[in-house]
Amino acid sequence: MLGDVTGDHPELDAIRVAVSTVIFSLRTAPDGDRLMLSLVRRTRAPHQGSWALPGGWLDPTENLDAAASRTLAETTALKPAYLEQLYTFGDVDRAPTRAIAIVYWALLRSDLVDAQRAASGAPENVEWFDVDELPALAFDHHRIADYALWRLRNKVGYSRIAAGLLPDEFTLTELREVYEAVLGRRLDPSNFRRLLEGSDELIPTESFRTGKHRPARLYRYLASD
Amino acid sequence: MLGDVTGDHPELDAIRVAVSTVIFSLRTAPDGDRLMLSLVRRTRAPHQGSWALPGGWLDPTENLDAAASRTLAETTALKPAYLEQLYTFGDVDRAPTRAIAIVYWALLRSDLVDAQRAASGAPENVEWFDVDELPALAFDHHRIADYALWRLRNKVGYSRIAAGLLPDEFTLTELREVYEAVLGRRLDPSNFRRLLEGSDELIPTESFRTGKHRPARLYRYLASD
Repeated sequence: MLGDVTGDHPELDAIRVAVSTVIFSLRTAPDGDRLMLSLVRRTRAPHQGSWALPGGWLDPTENLDAAASRTLAETTALKPAYLEQLYTFGDVDRAPTRAIAIVYWALLRSDLVDAQRAASGAPENVEWFDVDELPALAFDHHRIADYALWRLRNKVGYSRIAAGLLPDEFTLTELREVYEAVLGRRLDPSNFRRLLEGSDELIPTESFRTGKHRPARLYRYLASD
Repeated sequence: MLGDVTGDHPELDAIRVAVSTVIFSLRTAPDGDRLMLSLVRRTRAPHQGSWALPGGWLDPTENLDAAASRTLAETTALKPAYLEQLYTFGDVDRAPTRAIAIVYWALLRSDLVDAQRAASGAPENVEWFDVDELPALAFDHHRIADYALWRLRNKVGYSRIAAGLLPDEFTLTELREVYEAVLGRRLDPSNFRRLLEGSDELIPTESFRTGKHRPARLYRYLASD
């Protein structure tokens, strides 16, 4: 420890601070909507050519939330309304030199992904991957992605987090499909309907989704404030 | 950005990484058991003389969990069985120079606090404070303590986290007193008993707490593995 004039600072040594984001969306696949996350192909060493979570270095002049938004936008052109801090990963051997990663996560509605892509153009080295079919990832990013998925699957059970993947109004079938995509398994439609219709938080509207099927009532979540 | 040979590193600039811990216990106060946290009086600038959360700088050669245990032990001589990462605080203006704090939290049973204090001697500049009567804290530590308390109060409602403050076997009255101390309000004893007796996780034993009151049955939590 070199210390500085206050006697209270460590050596300016080799700990660097990165910010990364796990961003989930529902994307259409041949077998229906699937939960996917956005990855960036690295153009530099280390792990050049590998897929990695979007992110970058923390700038000394910016707050953590701002760094997460900025690095996500710079690498993927995605701008979710809300990013939440998830966990900080800092094992000594997670990167060739000591670097900690403050990890954020976000959910982005599929229609907004498409709109943002149309508006700004998707960077060439960015793709969405099915959470169950991830490629080999750089650093400890597979562990980070697994942790985020585990937290999402836990959280969907007791919160309205699924709403983050849906428009403001949705049918119960659409809501069930979000749960199925997040949980990675089929749910019984009538049990699901019975459970959700009993919720105080889910409000039936007077609107219906029409199309080739029987009209289906639209629901919304009770405003949380 | 100076960059290094890989072109992938930021300037070795002034971001430093600290690890701090919010450690809760139930401590006896004149009006009964109260939820308290352990603070350390700072002996160095900045904020010399102020109370602060126990912690210290991350060593480049140690993992985050190890750093939390080490800095907690060095400052308070406390060694909880389990520390959990809570959140990383990194606002630009939280300290005179840029420093992020990776914050852990822990619960420590009151009898273990006393045992550890007896074994190693409590450092002189460490005290327990009632969460509702905290002194002025250094840096953004009041915000951190408030956040930890908020998370604890939320978590106690849907998890067995209260068990972390109790011996392995306890009476329903003792369990209710833990909930009351954590939540900071009285609970109706018969409602509490009815609610808890219906829990699959709470197992009655064949033992009883005896003393000046009527013998009370001891319970334990179902083993979680």
